[in-house]
Amino acid sequence: MESHGKTHQKEKDDDVSPKPITLSKYSNRVELKTLLERIDGGAGLAGKKVVIGGWVKSSRAVKKDSPPPPPHVAAVASPSSDHTTTNIRCTEMIQSKMNIFKRFFDVLSGGGKTYPIFDKTELAGHKAGSPPEYVFYFSISDGSSVFNLQVIVDSALSTVPATQLMALGTCIVAEGVLRQPMAASSKYVIELEAEKLLHVGTVDPEKYPLSKKQLPLHMLRDFSHFRPRTTTVGSVTRVHSALTLASHTFFQYNGFEYVQVPVITTTGLGEMFRVTTLLGKTVDKEKKKPVKEKDGISIDTVKAAIKEKTKLIDYLKRSDSNREAVVAAVHDLKKTNDLASQLEMKRKPKAGTLVKSEKLDFSKDFFGRDAYLTVSGRFHLESYASALGKVYTFGPRFIADKIDNERHLAEMWNVETEMAFSELDDAMDCADEFFKYLCKYILEKRHEDLKFISKRVDKAITTRLEATASSTLLRVSYTEVISLLQKATTRTFETKPEWGVALTTEHLSYLTDEIYKGPVIIHSYPKATKPFYIRLNEDKNTVAAFDLVVPKIGVVITGSQNEERFEMLDARMGEFAYTREKFEWYLDLRRHGTVKHSGISLSMEHMLLFATGLPDIKDAIPFPRSWGKANN
Amino acid sequence: MESHGKTHQKEKDDDVSPKPITLSKYSNRVELKTLLERIDGGAGLAGKKVVIGGWVKSSRAVKKDSPPPPPHVAAVASPSSDHTTTNIRCTEMIQSKMNIFKRFFDVLSGGGKTYPIFDKTELAGHKAGSPPEYVFYFSISDGSSVFNLQVIVDSALSTVPATQLMALGTCIVAEGVLRQPMAASSKYVIELEAEKLLHVGTVDPEKYPLSKKQLPLHMLRDFSHFRPRTTTVGSVTRVHSALTLASHTFFQYNGFEYVQVPVITTTGLGEMFRVTTLLGKTVDKEKKKPVKEKDGISIDTVKAAIKEKTKLIDYLKRSDSNREAVVAAVHDLKKTNDLASQLEMKRKPKAGTLVKSEKLDFSKDFFGRDAYLTVSGRFHLESYASALGKVYTFGPRFIADKIDNERHLAEMWNVETEMAFSELDDAMDCADEFFKYLCKYILEKRHEDLKFISKRVDKAITTRLEATASSTLLRVSYTEVISLLQKATTRTFETKPEWGVALTTEHLSYLTDEIYKGPVIIHSYPKATKPFYIRLNEDKNTVAAFDLVVPKIGVVITGSQNEERFEMLDARMGEFAYTREKFEWYLDLRRHGTVKHSGISLSMEHMLLFATGLPDIKDAIPFPRSWGKANN
Repeated sequence: MESHGKTHQKEKDDDVSPKPITLSKYSNRVELKTLLERIDGGAGLAGKKVVIGGWVKSSRAVKKDSPPPPPHVAAVASPSSDHTTTNIRCTEMIQSKMNIFKRFFDVLSGGGKTYPIFDKTELAGHKAGSPPEYVFYFSISDGSSVFNLQVIVDSALSTVPATQLMALGTCIVAEGVLRQPMAASSKYVIELEAEKLLHVGTVDPEKYPLSKKQLPLHMLRDFSHFRPRTTTVGSVTRVHSALTLASHTFFQYNGFEYVQVPVITTTGLGEMFRVTTLLGKTVDKEKKKPVKEKDGISIDTVKAAIKEKTKLIDYLKRSDSNREAVVAAVHDLKKTNDLASQLEMKRKPKAGTLVKSEKLDFSKDFFGRDAYLTVSGRFHLESYASALGKVYTFGPRFIADKIDNERHLAEMWNVETEMAFSELDDAMDCADEFFKYLCKYILEKRHEDLKFISKRVDKAITTRLEATASSTLLRVSYTEVISLLQKATTRTFETKPEWGVALTTEHLSYLTDEIYKGPVIIHSYPKATKPFYIRLNEDKNTVAAFDLVVPKIGVVITGSQNEERFEMLDARMGEFAYTREKFEWYLDLRRHGTVKHSGISLSMEHMLLFATGLPDIKDAIPFPRSWGKANN
Repeated sequence: MESHGKTHQKEKDDDVSPKPITLSKYSNRVELKTLLERIDGGAGLAGKKVVIGGWVKSSRAVKKDSPPPPPHVAAVASPSSDHTTTNIRCTEMIQSKMNIFKRFFDVLSGGGKTYPIFDKTELAGHKAGSPPEYVFYFSISDGSSVFNLQVIVDSALSTVPATQLMALGTCIVAEGVLRQPMAASSKYVIELEAEKLLHVGTVDPEKYPLSKKQLPLHMLRDFSHFRPRTTTVGSVTRVHSALTLASHTFFQYNGFEYVQVPVITTTGLGEMFRVTTLLGKTVDKEKKKPVKEKDGISIDTVKAAIKEKTKLIDYLKRSDSNREAVVAAVHDLKKTNDLASQLEMKRKPKAGTLVKSEKLDFSKDFFGRDAYLTVSGRFHLESYASALGKVYTFGPRFIADKIDNERHLAEMWNVETEMAFSELDDAMDCADEFFKYLCKYILEKRHEDLKFISKRVDKAITTRLEATASSTLLRVSYTEVISLLQKATTRTFETKPEWGVALTTEHLSYLTDEIYKGPVIIHSYPKATKPFYIRLNEDKNTVAAFDLVVPKIGVVITGSQNEERFEMLDARMGEFAYTREKFEWYLDLRRHGTVKHSGISLSMEHMLLFATGLPDIKDAIPFPRSWGKANN
């Protein structure tokens, strides 16, 4: 049998030779991915000794004198009833899309304590070290893949009580031998028969949030530190990771240099967060959590419930439901609204507690002046494009608007580029190719994750990504689009589509969902709808800006050719009445060696929504920050 | 001749077939890199028509009846005098290391207006459209490479006055034909004879900072938006860019998933920047620049001058200089110190202008609670490692300590990893391999840039990077290191090396410069010198932390195995008396499914100092933010 010790030479991941076991880098365990994502599903590895580690996704205990249990059906198992009652089962169910009625009842009723209830009397025997003895069947995930490994552990190997060992989320590191499953009916190609338990990290099922069955994604938001342990969030993270590398690869491969633009800035437009040390750091204990908790229910949960209850009422009204059901639902919604009001009240500022900012002297602040979190890296990129030609960056951008919806966060990451010697068409070419490259990349590198997400979140994602990757994106002008919207007969818009208005979500959704039925690039917007620095077109009414818009999400990439003519930029700044001082350095770029240039900005979060079909941006990234919410 | 129009099919960068011209992506120009970094230096391209763009690095005008001028000697030319006085020359000189006396006189005397002075009477003839006519010889850079292209322009092609066309920093887009140089003595393999000037972006030499000759790097800091146009900063940026891609590639290749950790956080230790919207955004004009300008001289310039003058005095004292010279230098230093004091006075807070933070209710702030800029991503990464196994991130980290030195910035970017099922040795393996991978990567991918930086900044860098890439880094314990320091006979330390003290810069420099003469890993530090969350070793006195230390720079990578045992972590937190509430989620990771784990954190800025030999971190990254300083 093969040694797995630290002295064993670690093999490189790209080694495609038929060597049987690849140790994980920087660990003496084997990643489950390398066992389970082999073409043979791992069959060729039978007989090999390995160390594996991971967290329990489901478990069963079978009395030693019972027949072997039927196979686990999946990482996320549904209840089955085809075996003896002696066997005890514990499964995790995380669903993002559930029957609307089920969610309705779950959300505020709490759904009951649905973490696994063991027959403790039955298993107590093991605790005391006496028979009956059990064989545990674990389905283990280590997060390297959507697939789980079945691990068989004899109760004699464990010093931890069976109820603890079997609990969802328990961490297990085991040494054992890989084998073909005993049960002929097993869906697994390979399983591990443990010989030693090297580590057990227990959970407290009473307090572990993932112990609850069928937790919808929005309820997981309060547990952002645990939710990557669900298969769905794990898969979304792996897709996100691939999109990140793909972005760097695409631009460097195409001759762009990465530039590290600053997060703290003195330049920028719109609502910005101030960065300061004048107010000190609150080091004393928070007396109480200031916001939003009532009986353990957060305002987010309540808001989500309101949204769903509203949908339910809508559904009941449209369907043939009886009046009583509607009345009951409306009554229930009212109660939830009241709760929301109570929670919101806690947020309202008391009059007079805020200090006027005039009293603070920001020239005494850390940087000797006002400093903010950046809203865009493109200003700074322009400076480097005017020296290195083609540059890009990838970093966090911040908007302090008090908006809380499914498409907006206060902190989002953008991939931004700037290209000297380039014009609007070039930027649209760049957006088109970059967008399609990202789609192709994840289809190839995150096939299994997308398959899993398809099942759980949105059946159409793979088809949609494939269609996009092979399409040519249409480019239509704002003017054409307005004329199309004016001809719309199936839809009335809250904002009447007249030349000059900014396109709203309802316009964009009509265009992508009903007219183009896919992504589209809209360009040449009225100058008043875009920032001052975008290049004025020859017609003097429109500017060289574009948006790449996708169905359901909206804008994923924005782009523009920015004004390179000093006099023009100077005049446009005047129209917007901006403070000149902060933009002097930006104007300098036009004073000395100016050049035509254009660039794009991709919102990684919105790309991730497009790539996964997730409806809410708060579920797409690890630790979302939004108005009224910043955990961890 | 070959078409260069937009319809011309763009070739991929990795196309190694002998096709002659590769258009830049998203532009109809050709990048100079693709012409000048060919194995044949571009010779095979003679006769091809191309469009190029770039900025003037040096220029000469030769009367049409004169013989062709001698070749340019380099992008950064030294004055030469081997041609007729009719010819007018304009060259850029940016140097990071100059003769100490030269710098001494340049710094506060301003060095005089050394931007190019043209013989305007002579060239005025062209302005009026009458003879004499000129041929201009430009050395053009587009930032894609350290190499410049010689471009020959007949004055008849230009409608811009010759003095403007020739000024350093002018942007030129030209269409022309590539040819072998006419002058047999030329060092260029290829040059461009312009047929059309498509664009000229002029500079105002009176105001353009790079017009000044011999501007040292520290004086460029006030012009962070222009300095990438210098060859040195361009090369440093390209090295930085390569290090960034290399980081992502290394970790993804080794099975790590990228995780986007938040920049705004409620968790963290030490001095942190507060993020707030309570104080509004200052939109009105700044009455005056609040800090640091006196007669156009910034405090940074003065500080740098003090440093150099101090060195000068030191040098004069040690050498055989006469007493008068020393007295004069000391007197001069005193004057500069006085100026520094005056400038510093402006920063001092006036008593009573600051508002007490108690008056602000942070539960009314944007996030409903205190929020700060993150100091480290590893807390958040631990949560994802406890789900996905091996994760990494790359993002900005912030420290609000009022420190201003050559190794510290308020905003720095770290590459951070966290690995479940891994221990201290694994993290040291990871640090060792990652560090050496970065060295190898830039040696291979940024060969020309490193060669250029070697010439300008530090002759030893290539040798040092090569030696490091092929070495095995020694691992020594803190205890061993203390005993070595105690035996030091050639050096006395301000902080006496006794077991228990934190290692200081002087200790680290002695160890890497004199004992190990290269990078070394120091591990197992006394628990009091490291944060509470690092795993306590069996000896109960030391913790599982390490630092990878390099000569001259200090620590480039830190790493640790963090405490996975709940009781132990809980107790250590108690010792440090931290606010529990903010760390409850972090403790949760030990309550539910805990696992041994370790990770590392590389400071990209410090890596860049090691890779380039630059002495000051403010010159290593595009837009540095430090105490009292945040431009743009």
